[in-house]
Amino acid sequence: MSMPRPDGRRNDELRLLKMTPGVNLYAEGSVLVEMGQTRVLCTVSVEERVPPFLKDQGKGWVTAEYGMLPRATHERNSREAAKGKQTGRTQEIQRLVGRSLRSVVIPSRIGQRTLTVDCDVLQADGGTRTASINGGFVAMCLAFSQLMKAGLITQWPVADYLGAVSVGVVEGDPRLDLCYVEDSGAETDMNIVMTGKGAFVEIQGTAEEKPFSKKELDSLLSLGESGITQIIKAQKEIFMFPEPLSNDSRNA
Amino acid sequence: MSMPRPDGRRNDELRLLKMTPGVNLYAEGSVLVEMGQTRVLCTVSVEERVPPFLKDQGKGWVTAEYGMLPRATHERNSREAAKGKQTGRTQEIQRLVGRSLRSVVIPSRIGQRTLTVDCDVLQADGGTRTASINGGFVAMCLAFSQLMKAGLITQWPVADYLGAVSVGVVEGDPRLDLCYVEDSGAETDMNIVMTGKGAFVEIQGTAEEKPFSKKELDSLLSLGESGITQIIKAQKEIFMFPEPLSNDSRNA
Amino acid sequence: MSMPRPDGRRNDELRLLKMTPGVNLYAEGSVLVEMGQTRVLCTVSVEERVPPFLKDQGKGWVTAEYGMLPRATHERNSREAAKGKQTGRTQEIQRLVGRSLRSVVIPSRIGQRTLTVDCDVLQADGGTRTASINGGFVAMCLAFSQLMKAGLITQWPVADYLGAVSVGVVEGDPRLDLCYVEDSGAETDMNIVMTGKGAFVEIQGTAEEKPFSKKELDSLLSLGESGITQIIKAQKEIFMFPEPLSNDSRNA
Amino acid sequence: MSMPRPDGRRNDELRLLKMTPGVNLYAEGSVLVEMGQTRVLCTVSVEERVPPFLKDQGKGWVTAEYGMLPRATHERNSREAAKGKQTGRTQEIQRLVGRSLRSVVIPSRIGQRTLTVDCDVLQADGGTRTASINGGFVAMCLAFSQLMKAGLITQWPVADYLGAVSVGVVEGDPRLDLCYVEDSGAETDMNIVMTGKGAFVEIQGTAEEKPFSKKELDSLLSLGESGITQIIKAQKEIFMFPEPLSNDSRNA
Amino acid sequence: MSMPRPDGRRNDELRLLKMTPGVNLYAEGSVLVEMGQTRVLCTVSVEERVPPFLKDQGKGWVTAEYGMLPRATHERNSREAAKGKQTGRTQEIQRLVGRSLRSVVIPSRIGQRTLTVDCDVLQADGGTRTASINGGFVAMCLAFSQLMKAGLITQWPVADYLGAVSVGVVEGDPRLDLCYVEDSGAETDMNIVMTGKGAFVEIQGTAEEKPFSKKELDSLLSLGESGITQIIKAQKEIFMFPEPLSNDSRNA
Amino acid sequence: MSMPRPDGRRNDELRLLKMTPGVNLYAEGSVLVEMGQTRVLCTVSVEERVPPFLKDQGKGWVTAEYGMLPRATHERNSREAAKGKQTGRTQEIQRLVGRSLRSVVIPSRIGQRTLTVDCDVLQADGGTRTASINGGFVAMCLAFSQLMKAGLITQWPVADYLGAVSVGVVEGDPRLDLCYVEDSGAETDMNIVMTGKGAFVEIQGTAEEKPFSKKELDSLLSLGESGITQIIKAQKEIFMFPEPLSNDSRNA
Repeated sequence: MSMPRPDGRRNDELRLLKMTPGVNLYAEGSVLVEMGQTRVLCTVSVEERVPPFLKDQGKGWVTAEYGMLPRATHERNSREAAKGKQTGRTQEIQRLVGRSLRSVVIPSRIGQRTLTVDCDVLQADGGTRTASINGGFVAMCLAFSQLMKAGLITQWPVADYLGAVSVGVVEGDPRLDLCYVEDSGAETDMNIVMTGKGAFVEIQGTAEEKPFSKKELDSLLSLGESGITQIIKAQKEIFMFPEPLSNDSRNA
Repeated sequence: MSMPRPDGRRNDELRLLKMTPGVNLYAEGSVLVEMGQTRVLCTVSVEERVPPFLKDQGKGWVTAEYGMLPRATHERNSREAAKGKQTGRTQEIQRLVGRSLRSVVIPSRIGQRTLTVDCDVLQADGGTRTASINGGFVAMCLAFSQLMKAGLITQWPVADYLGAVSVGVVEGDPRLDLCYVEDSGAETDMNIVMTGKGAFVEIQGTAEEKPFSKKELDSLLSLGESGITQIIKAQKEIFMFPEPLSNDSRNA
Repeated sequence: MSMPRPDGRRNDELRLLKMTPGVNLYAEGSVLVEMGQTRVLCTVSVEERVPPFLKDQGKGWVTAEYGMLPRATHERNSREAAKGKQTGRTQEIQRLVGRSLRSVVIPSRIGQRTLTVDCDVLQADGGTRTASINGGFVAMCLAFSQLMKAGLITQWPVADYLGAVSVGVVEGDPRLDLCYVEDSGAETDMNIVMTGKGAFVEIQGTAEEKPFSKKELDSLLSLGESGITQIIKAQKEIFMFPEPLSNDSRNA
Repeated sequence: MSMPRPDGRRNDELRLLKMTPGVNLYAEGSVLVEMGQTRVLCTVSVEERVPPFLKDQGKGWVTAEYGMLPRATHERNSREAAKGKQTGRTQEIQRLVGRSLRSVVIPSRIGQRTLTVDCDVLQADGGTRTASINGGFVAMCLAFSQLMKAGLITQWPVADYLGAVSVGVVEGDPRLDLCYVEDSGAETDMNIVMTGKGAFVEIQGTAEEKPFSKKELDSLLSLGESGITQIIKAQKEIFMFPEPLSNDSRNA
Repeated sequence: MSMPRPDGRRNDELRLLKMTPGVNLYAEGSVLVEMGQTRVLCTVSVEERVPPFLKDQGKGWVTAEYGMLPRATHERNSREAAKGKQTGRTQEIQRLVGRSLRSVVIPSRIGQRTLTVDCDVLQADGGTRTASINGGFVAMCLAFSQLMKAGLITQWPVADYLGAVSVGVVEGDPRLDLCYVEDSGAETDMNIVMTGKGAFVEIQGTAEEKPFSKKELDSLLSLGESGITQIIKAQKEIFMFPEPLSNDSRNA
Repeated sequence: MSMPRPDGRRNDELRLLKMTPGVNLYAEGSVLVEMGQTRVLCTVSVEERVPPFLKDQGKGWVTAEYGMLPRATHERNSREAAKGKQTGRTQEIQRLVGRSLRSVVIPSRIGQRTLTVDCDVLQADGGTRTASINGGFVAMCLAFSQLMKAGLITQWPVADYLGAVSVGVVEGDPRLDLCYVEDSGAETDMNIVMTGKGAFVEIQGTAEEKPFSKKELDSLLSLGESGITQIIKAQKEIFMFPEPLSNDSRNA
């Protein structure tokens, strides 16, 4: 018989997911996303420029930045701005978030502009990178929606919905959506990003305590898929695409 | 006849002030402070160490750090952690906040520990440094209160209440608690920090557009005093000192 | 009866003020300013460019930088260039000096050029920021005068004289122009910048040891005013404006 | 019918793998690893200290650093030491290499010492991170072997062999061990790290051009497994464990 | 009678010198240079741009960068990229290498392009800066030769051959081409760079243990000259100028 | 017939050399050194600590730092502290100054303390590094003298006098003590450091425009020697060793 989870959830149960849109007065799109006690403020800023490598190609760019307030965690972490550099962890996460969001965006439809998705963790209880993808995705959609309303873009530029969740093997059991105490004691830890159609965008699995088998991997992927299905359903309650999903490929 | 203010307030009227305590799960003290559209998350972290210059003196230390989320403002500002340094403005503000808070703390009563007051601006509409002082003060009191409850300190270590507000001359009129559009067009801009007993802790006045007279200065100080009186009243609704104000000096 | 000052001055007496112009072979304007043992080398460099935010506006810019030689002080401080960053104190001071100088300059009269006022402290005995403003102001006037002689500017671009001094409450007494030992033990410490016509440009007062009353503030302001009057008189011995003060506002 | 690969290999064929041990005169272990045109110099340095978080626990630490010579690539990249910081990509890779190596090391058996595995890319043609893991693993074993010969450690501290390879979907086909032109045009790109017993240590899969299905994932994992089996076979030709694999868990 | 050298060489004998051209797949010129156990990888990258100070002058530029792999030395040195800055030693060496190479290049003949000569030390046993000059010179010639073959430059742009060697006084004896143990115990240490015609390009002599006389200096210079003659002979086996040496000055 | 020098000096004539001791109120030793228009402020700070590599060896350390005020030169240079790093030139110079001063100091006689010699260039007209050595040497002697008077050291720790000068070939003529316009147009440029007894401590010669012959080298060395003899004579007018020169080696 398996051990109970610290918050009493079933192994295949998500934490309470809450997304509050419009929490920032200035941003073109914003969402406060909460997955249990994890709380991330996502804001999207649109700028009429593209990075040098995209100059004069008629395409746009989506990028992400990630930060954590010093006391988002049990113990205070020193402020990255004061130390004068971002940690490897921060850079790894913001690269993952940006790459994931770009995987569903059709760059030729957004014009020569850059969307910067800032994901700032106000409180961390595990799963901040997946929460950032979930909140950042909705905030990005809200920004695109505003650009369409303003007539700045004419075709909906997002090819599919996108959701992310963490899964892991804890005390021998595959579990969905780990909180911090579970995450820090997990034997295996995996972050999964999938589209609304059920295809994979990112899989990052790490054996923290012991190597994992193909069978364990398959259980984790299947748990992750069920979690992401629920997350995307919740996203749709905040924001529905203005048109049905096309079958166009992302770079069409 | 004077010009109406952008938000219709009287010249001597504060913006809506709201302080929400306990907004962070981990911090020893936390407050979300809102002055109009300005929103600052203040968390206090207690660490059992002191900076080298206080080693073995039986005293503690209070320090502050300040940050602004990239999209706290109308236009996105680049992230200080990504640029690899804090701006002069950031450093100036966090020095002011720390100095102001220390002015009412009795270091010999807090033991050899350091309190770091992090003030992170989620949304900025003028007055972020004074909001940081107001929210940071209450969060600090909550942290001290928790230390007393835990028996780690025995005498209440805060000598007086503390409040801060901005004032300025805008279109020829002295005005209280400037919002961003007022602040950026002010002829003179001043930040005032005062104690509950009505003494000054900091005065920083700058002639942005034209030098100001002693008479203008006196009006501004008097406006500021009335504003701070109201702010301290609001603080007391969140937190009252556990004992009446002593007449001890700060370093007693 | 009040305590004597460390150097025997009256409470309302300035230290010996000396300004030596032309101390640098290359700079468009230069002054070595001494206030007692404090010694600051001020040089002004004119460059035919403006910062990006002033591009194509027909206006110029004045900015200041501040530095302290490692052994300007009792104990050696590590070199900022070697540490790889300027301290918060340095940045705060150079922002103050630049802002003060700009308050009396009419940008439309100086053309699209930038004046950089470098204030380097060779020896520090309190009051380095006010000495920097006093010396920097005269050095800036010398540079403008050279630009006028060269026909590069046609109207005198400085709206008024400018002086600065520190004042403070030490051992209960308001005192003018604090030296280092007074400054480090002051209950209250204030820097005042005023124009030749007696209006305030900057007031920065800090309660170091205990909060100060309105009455103390008024004494300090009045002491400061008398000191600045003498300082501006001394400046005029080095440099007189080529034309009487206009009543034009700075941005005319 | 599928497209031929740029170098004519079959889709399930590794590039020529070559490992040359003992290429550095000073390092406790060293290997020059070549996978096709990719060439990485791996050196292992043993130091008699542990990081602060392991102090007095009787355990050791393994960490990795990664670098790329400026002209390891088609176009010269600027030198990270000259730019003053490591890119996010560099940090991500060195975190992956360190984590992978640690997954098979039994820290209690290596004493209070740190092994730093430096992986410097002399020439890059895709797969530098997996080559770093393969070469770094053998170099680490050589260093441990030297420590055993010197009597500094008494039990063989590596729980299993370790190999890594990249796989990807290119022009619709799953392929093993991508070279640079394949990697940069891949629809999906995945790095896999496995133990000698066939369990997973890391899986990092990214949809570069389009999301991938579970079926594609399974093909990639199976290709990766076959590649890693060959790689570990090649490692054993360079270095065999001094004793048969134990069934002890890593942290026994 | 003088002490034997650690490797048994005569005092006027070079270490084994080996230059392997073409060791990098991408660089326009590359050489692996070995002087005894010292091993430096030199690659030359050609870019179609010049630094700002040469803009629109019809001239090109040659510059050098130097780095040392962390375990190139007996003890591991921390990685400069990780520390975030290059040491003074690194900067001094790369300035010397660049200056030496430029001394024989005719900038008007190379067009508006920049050659960056990267010298990365794989293994260090004394004399890395002179090895860098020797290998960098040949790699540069190979790159120029490729540019001529491609018709991008029309006249051979190198005015003379160039060689470098270290000499020193060790245990009272002048010795040629010091290895590390000799170098670290030398009384005097000198690096000499000369042209094929026997003129000096750089002399850097340092009294490490005791000041040296003119007579010692003359012996060292003469030893150096004989060593450089041999080195240039070895270079010519790798690369001969496509035309006899002109008598044109470098800037003709 | 040779060209006249810009300031009318003979080719073997030094510029006016002036050394003013005691120019800093706090430093243990200080000298303002002027060589023509070049002006360097040298201060020596004594600290009761040694760098880690000298721990518990009963020896002391002498180190130097070099800086240039932004407007020490014809055109303003940006401030190193603001840019966040020291240039390669700065580091090269301060390494030379420190090494030169250490060459005449007997470390076992100065106790476990560090002397930091700060050389800050107030005005530059060529030869700032040699002026720094000349002024730094005298300032260092003044500091040692003060330590002896205080009884902190008992034996005079400086083995010999030390002087430095630049020489160069300009318009075909060897010249002594180059000013800036000569230096920037020199065919060959050399810095020489010698002891009072006439032995060499450093020789750094660079062919700026064309390689130089042994004959030219000999003329330059001989010019340098005559200049340094005069400089050391001038130093002795400021400071004479308290005891005749010993014949002890530096490390006795």
